[in-house]
Amino acid sequence: MKAKSDIGLLGLAVMGQNLVLNMNDHGYTVSVFNRTPAKTRAFKSGPAAGRDSVIAAYDLEEFVQSLKQPRRVMLMVKAGHVVDNFISMLVPLLDPGDIIIDGGNSHFPDTTRRTHDLAQKGLLYIGTGVSGGEEGARHGPSIMPGGNKKAWPAVRDIFRSIAAKTPNGEPCCDWIGPDGAGHYVKMIHNGIEYGDMQLIAETYHLLHAGCGVSTEELGAVFERWNSGELESFLIEITAEILTVKDTDGTPLVEHILDAAGQKGTGKWTGIDALELGVPVTLIVEAVFSRALSSYKSERQEASRHFSAPNIPFSGSRNAFVEKVRTALYAAKIVSYAQGFMQISAAAHQNDWKLDYGSIARMWRAGCIIRSRFLGEITRAFEDNPKLKNLLLAPFFADAVRKAAPAWREVVIEAVRLGIPVPALSSALAFFDGYRSETLPANIVQAQRDYFGAHTYERTDHPRGEFFHTDWTGTGGDVSAGSYNA
Amino acid sequence: MKAKSDIGLLGLAVMGQNLVLNMNDHGYTVSVFNRTPAKTRAFKSGPAAGRDSVIAAYDLEEFVQSLKQPRRVMLMVKAGHVVDNFISMLVPLLDPGDIIIDGGNSHFPDTTRRTHDLAQKGLLYIGTGVSGGEEGARHGPSIMPGGNKKAWPAVRDIFRSIAAKTPNGEPCCDWIGPDGAGHYVKMIHNGIEYGDMQLIAETYHLLHAGCGVSTEELGAVFERWNSGELESFLIEITAEILTVKDTDGTPLVEHILDAAGQKGTGKWTGIDALELGVPVTLIVEAVFSRALSSYKSERQEASRHFSAPNIPFSGSRNAFVEKVRTALYAAKIVSYAQGFMQISAAAHQNDWKLDYGSIARMWRAGCIIRSRFLGEITRAFEDNPKLKNLLLAPFFADAVRKAAPAWREVVIEAVRLGIPVPALSSALAFFDGYRSETLPANIVQAQRDYFGAHTYERTDHPRGEFFHTDWTGTGGDVSAGSYNA
Repeated sequence: MKAKSDIGLLGLAVMGQNLVLNMNDHGYTVSVFNRTPAKTRAFKSGPAAGRDSVIAAYDLEEFVQSLKQPRRVMLMVKAGHVVDNFISMLVPLLDPGDIIIDGGNSHFPDTTRRTHDLAQKGLLYIGTGVSGGEEGARHGPSIMPGGNKKAWPAVRDIFRSIAAKTPNGEPCCDWIGPDGAGHYVKMIHNGIEYGDMQLIAETYHLLHAGCGVSTEELGAVFERWNSGELESFLIEITAEILTVKDTDGTPLVEHILDAAGQKGTGKWTGIDALELGVPVTLIVEAVFSRALSSYKSERQEASRHFSAPNIPFSGSRNAFVEKVRTALYAAKIVSYAQGFMQISAAAHQNDWKLDYGSIARMWRAGCIIRSRFLGEITRAFEDNPKLKNLLLAPFFADAVRKAAPAWREVVIEAVRLGIPVPALSSALAFFDGYRSETLPANIVQAQRDYFGAHTYERTDHPRGEFFHTDWTGTGGDVSAGSYNA
Repeated sequence: MKAKSDIGLLGLAVMGQNLVLNMNDHGYTVSVFNRTPAKTRAFKSGPAAGRDSVIAAYDLEEFVQSLKQPRRVMLMVKAGHVVDNFISMLVPLLDPGDIIIDGGNSHFPDTTRRTHDLAQKGLLYIGTGVSGGEEGARHGPSIMPGGNKKAWPAVRDIFRSIAAKTPNGEPCCDWIGPDGAGHYVKMIHNGIEYGDMQLIAETYHLLHAGCGVSTEELGAVFERWNSGELESFLIEITAEILTVKDTDGTPLVEHILDAAGQKGTGKWTGIDALELGVPVTLIVEAVFSRALSSYKSERQEASRHFSAPNIPFSGSRNAFVEKVRTALYAAKIVSYAQGFMQISAAAHQNDWKLDYGSIARMWRAGCIIRSRFLGEITRAFEDNPKLKNLLLAPFFADAVRKAAPAWREVVIEAVRLGIPVPALSSALAFFDGYRSETLPANIVQAQRDYFGAHTYERTDHPRGEFFHTDWTGTGGDVSAGSYNA
């Protein structure tokens, strides 16, 4: 077979298929391979029918030989050992300078490891986040590549041509950074997605179960919200979802079981936040909310033991709807501020130099969290590349200041009604903590020093000077050893 | 040297020293060894002076040879590779059937690995949690052993004699389970400790900064609380801490820097909860609160951008203090319920058969979270060994039902005042979620099905039947592949 393909794509599940069609639409010749040949055949005779420049290969060597050099092989396979297996099958077939791209949801430490392993073999590795689901892959995803930067010039044009474009026409794809930085940023994207979805679910729940707004009315509410500062893919699809009827004419969502699944990237984000010591409270509350939802039968049992507070909503529904919108917006700002705090801590730890405005631009279109809001984030980082925290950017500080009174009212009303809003309320607690010059961690430090001699710092001494008090007057002077609290 | 010691203790930091003195007080002859001989010498001529049955060894072989068979060697060294290093030095010196005990804060998967590795070499391994700080180690710690059960009869009497005793005289030490079960339970203990400390800090902050109750007055408040259902070591020491004065006569805590440290076990608990999919929200909020406290300079900057709501507390201070006490009690019940949910999920995953009432009894005295409350938990599990959740035990269900109105008022007041109470409020959100037959996870499932074809279950069909809707009327019928949300 003559080497004529611009890129090879391995793994023909829906994301892989759609990326192939997208690349092909942009003029690239694409070789395709799948472990199960039947899937390749079905793709070639189905979605790819009539496309001469989609080349089906039924043998891995033939697939590799069909690619122009430096060869670009993109994996769209299940994250984990499947990726390692394909890499080890590909390595002997490739030449120095060839490029392997992993476009699945790999865990970023795996990508870091693979980038370094392959560099030692003279191969260039890219781990890239690809977001946007089926539709995004087909018509323009958000693409977040990281790894071996030497590979970037060779894939740049393909990726940027197939990527989504912002309203200004900029591609939602740029080089993120070394190691697993691309997959890291995709992980945070997914964590933020968990948070956004949970916030929407909470506002639905509060207005529906707490204030009696019907699902149909809420469809209209979310549609209206989508024309303002909350404009985003997730608000848009929620509006659509709420209008879809079941066969009996009632809203379909009301028949969907309230037990949410998860595939792990939200969990990874939370674990990483804990590892880094960054208080990413909203995303973790969102992940835990999915976990709690899955305790369905236990919740049914508990609902018979505990009743809701018997104090119905009595205010103006329309005014409250607007307050809930405001609260959602404020909590969303906190969530993104937390997400960028986490990225920044990871960049610091891994010595990655990242462009935060560019990351927000990659999320502006194509991906699941795409929104008008992300344009404002890009602007905030462009206005001040040294911005310490999104909450300190004038645009967002002002927005949160204005939103705070309504936000407080909404959380208070939810607590009063007994409707759980863990993401809205933990975001508010975070905000109140973040804007507090003084927090009660002095009590925690005193306790730790009392029982474990862990020492403390003082407000009237420089940081780094540590003090220990013999609180009971009876302790010894041995320092803390194996006990850790 | 004649083999005459009942046990050998390796690692003479404060916890190790105090355990030796404790064992020796109970009639055991103890050999001691430390990597730095000077420390051994200082211990022998200092705290252990005049104790003929504390045998100092300055050579590891001599140390091992001084022990009666089966030899019992207890490590009180820094968790991590130090433990592995000492194990590999000990193995060639030991005989089949000898016992190595790790009493440090090892991460439970390490203990599982070591238990299995040493079993293959014919050695018996125990990983045990030891809690209580310096004082506990000296006069009666809580001891939580797990690992190779064959070793239990040989250490049972020593451990139970030196352990703390409950008010009924039962030792706070019993066999927990196989693998790393002992260190696992100790990890959860420490996570709960983070939660308890955070709850106390929040109530202090709310009453002090929010309602103007002075530190001195709060010392008396906590002392009073300690005579009721909140009676516990942490409440007791907080009362003491609040009365300690600095050299200028002002409360010492007011000069302690509000940036809390952490050594990792709270973080481990949170990571494990995320891994298991158990919504342990309160502990994670506590860990994140410590993390946020460490952003001290950024908080100082943020405090200049955002002001607190300008609505001072105006109710009855005394009545509010009692409501805050009630809220703390209710949130504490939630925290322990979550902790036991996590232990139960781990037991299920690892196929450990655990006795939950016995675990609560081990925490009843000696350890940092010791409290009257833990006696009620033991009773709840003894009354109903199949109890699904602590919140469903009649005693606790009743307590939470009674506490809920005050708890809501406290969270509402904190939100109104702008005092962050992340643990109190996330516990309430959890409670409201847990007691809700219906949660808005149906919206999340609909969204996931919309953009990722992840499918959903229906309320009117059996669990395990999955449905997919083409929400826009334009989607294909390929199933979700590499995209995971």
